[in-house]
Amino acid sequence: MITIAVAKGDGIGPEIMDAVLHIFNAANVPLKYDIVEMGKWVFDKGFSNGMTPEAQETIESLGVLFKGPMETPKGKGVKSINVTARKTWNTYANKRTFQTLHGVDTVFSKAGIPIDITIVRENIEDTYGGIEHMLTHDVALSRRFITRPGSMQVIRYAFEMAKKKGAKRITCGHKANIMKITDGLFLEVFYKVAKAYPTLKADDIIVDDLCMKLVTRPDTFDVVVLTNLQGDIVSDLCAGLVGGLGFAPSANIGDHISIFEAVHGTAPDIAGKNLANPTALLLSGIGMLQHLGLMEIAANIENALLYTLESGVHTGDFGNKQTAPIGTTEFAQAIINNFGKKPTHNPKPDTDDIANTCTVYKLDKNPMLESVETEQEKIVGVDMFIESNEQPNSVAEKCLAHGKNIFNLVTISNRGTQVWPTGSVFTNLVNQYRCRFESINNRALSQQDIINLYSSLSKDFKVCSLELLNMWHGSKAYSLAQGQ
Amino acid sequence: MITIAVAKGDGIGPEIMDAVLHIFNAANVPLKYDIVEMGKWVFDKGFSNGMTPEAQETIESLGVLFKGPMETPKGKGVKSINVTARKTWNTYANKRTFQTLHGVDTVFSKAGIPIDITIVRENIEDTYGGIEHMLTHDVALSRRFITRPGSMQVIRYAFEMAKKKGAKRITCGHKANIMKITDGLFLEVFYKVAKAYPTLKADDIIVDDLCMKLVTRPDTFDVVVLTNLQGDIVSDLCAGLVGGLGFAPSANIGDHISIFEAVHGTAPDIAGKNLANPTALLLSGIGMLQHLGLMEIAANIENALLYTLESGVHTGDFGNKQTAPIGTTEFAQAIINNFGKKPTHNPKPDTDDIANTCTVYKLDKNPMLESVETEQEKIVGVDMFIESNEQPNSVAEKCLAHGKNIFNLVTISNRGTQVWPTGSVFTNLVNQYRCRFESINNRALSQQDIINLYSSLSKDFKVCSLELLNMWHGSKAYSLAQGQ
Repeated sequence: MITIAVAKGDGIGPEIMDAVLHIFNAANVPLKYDIVEMGKWVFDKGFSNGMTPEAQETIESLGVLFKGPMETPKGKGVKSINVTARKTWNTYANKRTFQTLHGVDTVFSKAGIPIDITIVRENIEDTYGGIEHMLTHDVALSRRFITRPGSMQVIRYAFEMAKKKGAKRITCGHKANIMKITDGLFLEVFYKVAKAYPTLKADDIIVDDLCMKLVTRPDTFDVVVLTNLQGDIVSDLCAGLVGGLGFAPSANIGDHISIFEAVHGTAPDIAGKNLANPTALLLSGIGMLQHLGLMEIAANIENALLYTLESGVHTGDFGNKQTAPIGTTEFAQAIINNFGKKPTHNPKPDTDDIANTCTVYKLDKNPMLESVETEQEKIVGVDMFIESNEQPNSVAEKCLAHGKNIFNLVTISNRGTQVWPTGSVFTNLVNQYRCRFESINNRALSQQDIINLYSSLSKDFKVCSLELLNMWHGSKAYSLAQGQ
Repeated sequence: MITIAVAKGDGIGPEIMDAVLHIFNAANVPLKYDIVEMGKWVFDKGFSNGMTPEAQETIESLGVLFKGPMETPKGKGVKSINVTARKTWNTYANKRTFQTLHGVDTVFSKAGIPIDITIVRENIEDTYGGIEHMLTHDVALSRRFITRPGSMQVIRYAFEMAKKKGAKRITCGHKANIMKITDGLFLEVFYKVAKAYPTLKADDIIVDDLCMKLVTRPDTFDVVVLTNLQGDIVSDLCAGLVGGLGFAPSANIGDHISIFEAVHGTAPDIAGKNLANPTALLLSGIGMLQHLGLMEIAANIENALLYTLESGVHTGDFGNKQTAPIGTTEFAQAIINNFGKKPTHNPKPDTDDIANTCTVYKLDKNPMLESVETEQEKIVGVDMFIESNEQPNSVAEKCLAHGKNIFNLVTISNRGTQVWPTGSVFTNLVNQYRCRFESINNRALSQQDIINLYSSLSKDFKVCSLELLNMWHGSKAYSLAQGQ
């Protein structure tokens, strides 16, 4: 019997968690629960990350956390407990499944458009690294990074999960037409991984087109994998399609620890009143059972839930206004009473259990995810980001005095648009320029060459930032300026 | 009489443009048209930016371009003509209006949910600057920049436009809970501008929540202003809500040149067959008339269009399958025949013309948008982004040998998560670390101090990138690491 950690959460958390565990126990789910201390009330007891050391130890030794909604105290400078959990335990994939639930009215269910979409979102990278700087008083920068091994982890998970759930199609959502290097890398990894799954139809779509199609033809999508911010936006859009966060489960998957949670709020106004809807948390729990390979019991509980919703039973937040709502515990009991029944729409098939391949082991150092590829590499230049409120020609004139015989000044751009050697007088400038220096004839440079240029240039300008220009296998590992 | 530049475009472009100009002429629109050469066929004639020098000169002297859909030749390394136009002429605001069109069926129109949303998207900044670098073989970086004056331009436009159209509410969509400095800046500027418009209800919403609400309660939004990528995604989502790109006009607004265009494709398969739907281009043209202050004639044409759609007249791409579709020219004629009629749903009110305040003047240098604020400023450290596949403690040990007596090594992070001095063993690493060096007691540093540290550190590591840490008015102008 597997033991998992359970954190009931704040607000309506305890009552919906109790309802779900009551359903699990009635279904004889073969799990044991270790209740841990985590949430706003733990912050309030003085634990700055919202959990006790014992809770953290238990979760790390068990590897699976089932959690209710939690609140982060406001205005105390503490980080969101949900973000802390994802970061601390490196849960690199966020998986959310959105399906039409008959009995939960939406414009799409009314129009008879069926929805069954799983969004897998990268959970660590992108601008969520929170690496931000003001370069001048006027220019703010957020570093959006996408890594090859990070993309590999989440995309591999997405394919493996899609295969396990019997998906037909897996789609990569991206903006590689604009972010050619970062999203281009994500897309490249996607098609590399796809080769190992020939039975899955793998394709890709630009994220804005994806969002347009999701609100017109959501029935055409199956599994979609995306980078962090785009995935965040698309998952909430999809939650809207099926009735909101109250009907959308969530899983945060890592190699060592995975977290299954409802992502809706703690609804303090109705807490303790037996009014809350436990559906999202129950669906998250069902996802957890599937993750643990307990496919049969997961299908049984899900069928009972779908049957119950279909029959018109509902809590106060949804459903037919003509029929009276019931309470949280009665809703749970209605599901238990429907064990063994199958819904008319989309009954879940009987599926054999899968051996649980989740491994819990002790790490003695941080995993380093380096790609094994080694490539011929050289430094061929540097982008110097400088502060100046002068016109492009004056900036160029000054730059040209530096790095002579080693570097060519090849382009100066402002907000990504080239302003020197050619440009448009209509380009509005901000007080930061990017000056690109490349080595003459792509000669390999040393770091000392870059440092010498920096030192020389700093006599004329404040250099806010710099990026090396690399060349690998004879290809430039950087983008050209618009107009270059 | 104002003269504007007209580029008919590729594929179905010429026939839908002819249809729209036919409607304009029948309505006695007081404009003259100067037809310019721009599009794929101009690329094919050997002009690498898709327009002739005469076309560019005409557009720049007239200040308004009305354009049909255009194609960019594939695989020739040429930039998208649409992007080139926006960049060259600094059209900093993209405005798109999405309204329920009775006669165009969508799940929302069937559900009786009215939509009338205007999205204003910043059009220059964000990751659309295309500044990307590979820092190591595994780590790709896109620089997402948001500037104070760039935000000011687009937000001022949004408020001014909202006031002109009689909007009640203006909402800022953002992700400032994650991108606290960049989107925080955008949001700060939004509320600063809002103070000058006390009659408009100004509020803000997290972009993922916005997308969820747009697919459940789109009728609650009016004008929404966003940064570039988020605005791109949200506008296409909204196009989906009203029936797709065929019903969504677009305007790119600059201080000197503005572009009004249909953003759908060139549909080469039906080009020249009199089958294309001119609605999006006509709506874009109506937006252009409003921009020029010709409010009365714009309302007349729009009412005739709405009446025509409402009456069930349609081209082959939409409408009741039971009634036969008509051709492009017949569709235009039907609208002309309905001049003077008003639709049952959402008739446009008679509005007085507004004096045209668009100015066309010659620029002799690039406008510099620097904020006038001057602030007490000092350099207090540097983030060094280094390549290494060693464990955090080894990296720290080496770093600690550099910059002694000047700098403290305060944190090392990997993908934004702190791994030294404290961290979690579960954090998966990539082969790039960010090492933050701050001056002892926040002493003001010189650029030479930074250069000396760089020079010293480069003996142990390849430094891929660096960012200065600034302090203004005693506040840190950079974010802390997760866990710092």
